[in-house]
Amino acid sequence: MGIVVQKYGGSSVADAAGIKRVAQRIVNTKKQGHDVVVVVSAMGDTTDELRDLAEQVTPLPPPRELDMLLTAGERISMALVAMAIAQLGHEARSYTGSQAGVITDSVHGKAKIIDIRPGRIEEALKDGAIAIVAGFQGVSQDTKEVTTLGRGASDTTAVALAAALGAEVCEIYSDVDGVFTADPRIVHTARKLEKVSTEEMLELAASGAKILHLRCVEYARRYDMPIHVRSSFSSKEGTWIIPDNSPGAAEMEQAIIAGVAHDRSEAKITVVGVPDKVGEAARIFETLANSEVNIDMVVQNVSAAATGLTDISFTLPRTDGQHAMGALARLQSEIGYDKLLYDDQIGKVSLIGAGMRSHPGITAKFFSALASAGVNIEMISTSEIRISVIVDEAQVDTAVQAAHSAFDLDADEVEAVVYGGTGR
Amino acid sequence: MGIVVQKYGGSSVADAAGIKRVAQRIVNTKKQGHDVVVVVSAMGDTTDELRDLAEQVTPLPPPRELDMLLTAGERISMALVAMAIAQLGHEARSYTGSQAGVITDSVHGKAKIIDIRPGRIEEALKDGAIAIVAGFQGVSQDTKEVTTLGRGASDTTAVALAAALGAEVCEIYSDVDGVFTADPRIVHTARKLEKVSTEEMLELAASGAKILHLRCVEYARRYDMPIHVRSSFSSKEGTWIIPDNSPGAAEMEQAIIAGVAHDRSEAKITVVGVPDKVGEAARIFETLANSEVNIDMVVQNVSAAATGLTDISFTLPRTDGQHAMGALARLQSEIGYDKLLYDDQIGKVSLIGAGMRSHPGITAKFFSALASAGVNIEMISTSEIRISVIVDEAQVDTAVQAAHSAFDLDADEVEAVVYGGTGR
Repeated sequence: MGIVVQKYGGSSVADAAGIKRVAQRIVNTKKQGHDVVVVVSAMGDTTDELRDLAEQVTPLPPPRELDMLLTAGERISMALVAMAIAQLGHEARSYTGSQAGVITDSVHGKAKIIDIRPGRIEEALKDGAIAIVAGFQGVSQDTKEVTTLGRGASDTTAVALAAALGAEVCEIYSDVDGVFTADPRIVHTARKLEKVSTEEMLELAASGAKILHLRCVEYARRYDMPIHVRSSFSSKEGTWIIPDNSPGAAEMEQAIIAGVAHDRSEAKITVVGVPDKVGEAARIFETLANSEVNIDMVVQNVSAAATGLTDISFTLPRTDGQHAMGALARLQSEIGYDKLLYDDQIGKVSLIGAGMRSHPGITAKFFSALASAGVNIEMISTSEIRISVIVDEAQVDTAVQAAHSAFDLDADEVEAVVYGGTGR
Repeated sequence: MGIVVQKYGGSSVADAAGIKRVAQRIVNTKKQGHDVVVVVSAMGDTTDELRDLAEQVTPLPPPRELDMLLTAGERISMALVAMAIAQLGHEARSYTGSQAGVITDSVHGKAKIIDIRPGRIEEALKDGAIAIVAGFQGVSQDTKEVTTLGRGASDTTAVALAAALGAEVCEIYSDVDGVFTADPRIVHTARKLEKVSTEEMLELAASGAKILHLRCVEYARRYDMPIHVRSSFSSKEGTWIIPDNSPGAAEMEQAIIAGVAHDRSEAKITVVGVPDKVGEAARIFETLANSEVNIDMVVQNVSAAATGLTDISFTLPRTDGQHAMGALARLQSEIGYDKLLYDDQIGKVSLIGAGMRSHPGITAKFFSALASAGVNIEMISTSEIRISVIVDEAQVDTAVQAAHSAFDLDADEVEAVVYGGTGR
């Protein structure tokens, strides 16, 4: 049997009891004959507590030192998991990102993995030991400095390691049973998906489904690594995320719609009265790009011929809102727009499914379901396998429920689930 | 001006306020024109808290993983100190023991430093930065594993780094003002020593003075590195520990007696009725050595000619008491002794001073002071510059006070001091 990489999030290793439970699960996998490599996040809220400590010392910690500080979190959890496995009579060796060969660029706080050189991991497996690896961290290629990969990146560490080791599967454990057709806190009849393609999972993650980080799914897609998302609190099968090119994908019975995702983290900015000349829109978005603001959806009104003016609306992360408004305000005289409007009482609701390609009429059905539920659509954006709308934040739940019912996504029986974050 | 190495104990960096205070002191030293290298312990009780976590997971953590776990403590404190220095407008870079080039043997939990290769530290100093180094930890030469040096070893890290960097001085900061003529909690008139020789400091440390770890003083002596022991809570001069061969030592006005130390951590075992034959004592102490029990003082009674039997008493750490009794009990038939007596209600009181060499009569004066105070002496041991006696534990305070008065060690004015541990 081959290598299995398992990743456990912060909620799974939040205390000694959780660590022992996880250790038992790891040992069971080992006993089935697999070589096991485990990636762990920091325990519970450790990372936030360390950030708080840093904030007590300085409002602007140097990124190098913040990375040094935060990496202590996984160091603690990985050593404890290794100890708990030893207590069960199996050998485990813990490795920092650096020791595990996670080579990154030099951008502290959001470094990118550029290579995996898992020599020490392979040695541990050859010796019959279980390897425990710190998620979320690496070492920079040029400067040999400790780096972190950014929030949610332990998933990425796991998938990257799985790819480098040629693992059979990368199992991502959290406190959630899998990927659901919608957030079960909003739609009580939401159904756990047995399988979903990486293509659909990418759109779900990009549209607000928090169960997997976007970068992790991108990595899995690039390296054709199947992911099994499941709960560390039960032994139930979770959701398999099947690479588009894998044999599994071909066998997959493709549902038309995989699920409904929503996102309440965006805000909308409208630039009112923009002169309808070539290059004006470009100037606006160049300004935002230079300020490192990420834009999501963009809509430009049809120009009113009489005035020669148009309005441009776009959405962006709320956290960038103030920054973007400032950058645009400084450019008012240059662009010559009339005024800026800011609205953070919005939400995005997205319908995702690979079956959209071959099934016309999905958009009409989606919009008519929203209309019947009294939901007003403010903006629309689509991809080949996704339709997203911006609605009033107060109507997000209604919109998700309406779409979920309209496309018959409801489960026959309601499963008892807790839907939460996945740690990082 | 040269390099100054400063070491701050856990009590000095126990919280954000302490870390900021320490950062200010470091920056002040830098502003005086020194290159500054700082060694830090883990914050406050962090190490004990991490040990507790390990205990919750397993009673017997693998030493490799325990070292991985505990080294997270200094990682946190060093990053925070570096951040606090940055907040004051100076550049600081933190380094783990491994990054700082602290090369050790492979004995997890009590590794010995075998080399210091401070290339990255020297580079940081060349760039004008302040280097912050994790105390207590290193990396093993052969296996490249993370190791710890044992309790109190941050002091040793500091002195070893100071020696490798050719520093002017190694400053050891804690919550104590310096080395005192006796524990001020017992002798209220105890006086802070301005200077003490490494030779005397070695005897003080070995006799129970907790302010500096024995290994650290041994290192300072071997490399002729002056140590300045002082408080991080005041700007007062502390105590200088002057290497025996340094110019400072020759200038030193040698007091006859440096101080009185005491130790309540030992127990006494008496082997009663040992056949007075060649090799019997050797067999007893071989047995103890094989059980890795450290013996301190040994006394053998004059043999009673009539019986051909003798008694052998020795002291040892209380923590080894049960282990040693067991090892000896298993050997009873082989040695043929009569019985074993165990007493952990004892204390050791030691008088230390290089002046003893040239001043006869010190022993007589010491013993007569104890007799006047009604203290009974159970065992005696001496070195060239030290006299130690074992007394009833309940009489330790009385004995220390009597010796302190007899040798005129009292201060003219009582300094307000807190005498405590030094972190590690």
